[in-house]
Amino acid sequence: MASLPPSLTAAIAAIGPLDEGAMAATKARLDQLTKPPGSLGRLEQLAIQLAGITGDLAPRVEPRAIVVMAADHGVAAQGVSAYPQAVTAQMMANFLASGAAINALARHAGADVVVVDMGVANPIPPPQSPARVGRFISAPIGPGSGDISVGPAMSRAEALAAIEVGLRVAADLAAAGVRLVGVGEMGIANTTAASAVAAALTGRLAREVTGRGTGVDDATYRRKLEAVQRALKVNHPPAEDPLAVLAAVGGFEIGGLVGLMLGVAAAGIPVILDGFITGAAAIIAVALCPRLPPRLIASHRSVEPGHAILLDHLGLVPLLDLELRLGEGTGAALAMHLIDAACRTRDEMATFASAGLSGQGSPHPPTSKGDTESAADLPREPRRG
Amino acid sequence: MASLPPSLTAAIAAIGPLDEGAMAATKARLDQLTKPPGSLGRLEQLAIQLAGITGDLAPRVEPRAIVVMAADHGVAAQGVSAYPQAVTAQMMANFLASGAAINALARHAGADVVVVDMGVANPIPPPQSPARVGRFISAPIGPGSGDISVGPAMSRAEALAAIEVGLRVAADLAAAGVRLVGVGEMGIANTTAASAVAAALTGRLAREVTGRGTGVDDATYRRKLEAVQRALKVNHPPAEDPLAVLAAVGGFEIGGLVGLMLGVAAAGIPVILDGFITGAAAIIAVALCPRLPPRLIASHRSVEPGHAILLDHLGLVPLLDLELRLGEGTGAALAMHLIDAACRTRDEMATFASAGLSGQGSPHPPTSKGDTESAADLPREPRRG
Repeated sequence: MASLPPSLTAAIAAIGPLDEGAMAATKARLDQLTKPPGSLGRLEQLAIQLAGITGDLAPRVEPRAIVVMAADHGVAAQGVSAYPQAVTAQMMANFLASGAAINALARHAGADVVVVDMGVANPIPPPQSPARVGRFISAPIGPGSGDISVGPAMSRAEALAAIEVGLRVAADLAAAGVRLVGVGEMGIANTTAASAVAAALTGRLAREVTGRGTGVDDATYRRKLEAVQRALKVNHPPAEDPLAVLAAVGGFEIGGLVGLMLGVAAAGIPVILDGFITGAAAIIAVALCPRLPPRLIASHRSVEPGHAILLDHLGLVPLLDLELRLGEGTGAALAMHLIDAACRTRDEMATFASAGLSGQGSPHPPTSKGDTESAADLPREPRRG
Repeated sequence: MASLPPSLTAAIAAIGPLDEGAMAATKARLDQLTKPPGSLGRLEQLAIQLAGITGDLAPRVEPRAIVVMAADHGVAAQGVSAYPQAVTAQMMANFLASGAAINALARHAGADVVVVDMGVANPIPPPQSPARVGRFISAPIGPGSGDISVGPAMSRAEALAAIEVGLRVAADLAAAGVRLVGVGEMGIANTTAASAVAAALTGRLAREVTGRGTGVDDATYRRKLEAVQRALKVNHPPAEDPLAVLAAVGGFEIGGLVGLMLGVAAAGIPVILDGFITGAAAIIAVALCPRLPPRLIASHRSVEPGHAILLDHLGLVPLLDLELRLGEGTGAALAMHLIDAACRTRDEMATFASAGLSGQGSPHPPTSKGDTESAADLPREPRRG
């Protein structure tokens, strides 16, 4: 891999292994609470992971933000989406007017929405409800990336510039005291770019990682799959060079998300992934920094077939499976509630000792759920009619 | 089936089909919002289901309650649990002192906890923090049900009395204006009873529906499975008579939950199921009232192997899969957040028209995600190395 700029090198170097001591202490604490050990399942795992990421036994997870990075994609010209390119800019205005799904779900999660223009092609219409404008960062790398079906998405310098923007946004959030960051995106045709990234870095076939995005018809899907295949053939992105993959077949918002994830993780703040596009950014980030995955929380598994492949590649198990296919950070916002639930049970439950409960030292002590059952050892029984 | 008491007959009769008009109007409303149609997946399905249950296009889901019904089980004497029977009463005290997982999660969900003593064997210790006592209903059918491994759990009259308690609790909640009800339970050894109910009503083998409950070791699991098998052999509960199954191998809290679910549903209020024991109560309730399932919301799939079998039997797909195995209503409380998210996106998002968005009438209109892809039609591609 070619040399990296100092800010990126520093972020990668700052991402160490999780704090094993904090994780063990949290597990010991959870096992004192008035429930069978491990019986809160993923909530307990989340509490332990949060301790490992932050090095804190009772980390705060507020204030919190959802960062929505947006950009346009030249490959939209190939007719790969159900929506015209103008919708990217229109949705930016909708985010800023608090009218989108992510606005409703971020409010529900108690999170601020930070909208970042990484390179939207059209002028962003003035918000119709200016009183409700959210936080907006304008940092475009250019007026949309190149059409990956005929050439590269961007230069290597542009890819690094996009990552730099993400690192700066992360530093701003950390400086503002944010303790939990969800990542989201918007960009007509960006599932096409994400599919190409996924194929390039996982070695899977384009057709395995290309889905219907927002919900395209058969003819559009055919064009989309062909565009991904041409993108891989024309650009032949090298799997061993994640920056080259980003430049060849990625997008400006994908590059921004790579920097954002690395910067947030480097600051010891948990990162909540969203759907397929943030997953594609994550595999680039993990290729740059293999210690990143345990600092990521997979919020959900989307309908996009490539998303499950990316999550497997990352070694992450999603918290939710709600058939979402919207992006914007909507899944990340929904997962914040489960993180809160993990913290509240950790902090608010009585212990066996404080509640005067039997159970520890009971005649049949509980064992872990991992015990194997040997069918051959079990009593026989007839099947009833 | 023998004749039923009037209150139960009335509840069953009050449960009609869902309101198709309200569901269609809600779907039309959701399709106007600034997102691809259906892209919020299960959240949209929840919004539609809520409309169908309530007959209201924007139903309120507050105030809300989690009802925790508790009872003891004579089969605990067979050494089927990791915990002594005294824990049932001790956990009641913990619920009333707000120290249990369900208290933390209900607070997080904005729900009141209503604790019902359906037949706890031991005296409930005085709460250690009396200032925080929650709502408590004492309606014991008896000091624990009979040991199902040697005889019936209860008489048919007791089974009907337990259901009556649940119907009364439901009527009280409806009268108090509650708009959303989660159901939960507590009772040492009640997964043993639930396994026997599940086997009796689904026709599956005991070993298919018997798991490790709170987390028992191999020897305890063996005793538990043998107890379920003996319960089925000794009592031979008839699958065609759900009340007889409840009386033979159920439990007082399971009977209470049957009445609660039917009463809440009869009042047009959505019912959120929790784990395996509430699932066993649900299959009894559904056997009594086949129109009940679409009024139930399956919050989660637990670690208990029988739970997935019960959910399949009910035709319900759980919202969450978090490896929970605690009960108490914890999964139901967690699902309330998703119901809120469904309502907030329904109510707070801009429409395509209000936001001035392109998309409707776009050149490539979105189609439903159910479109089938024919692999044979797709362009071929080589697998890259």
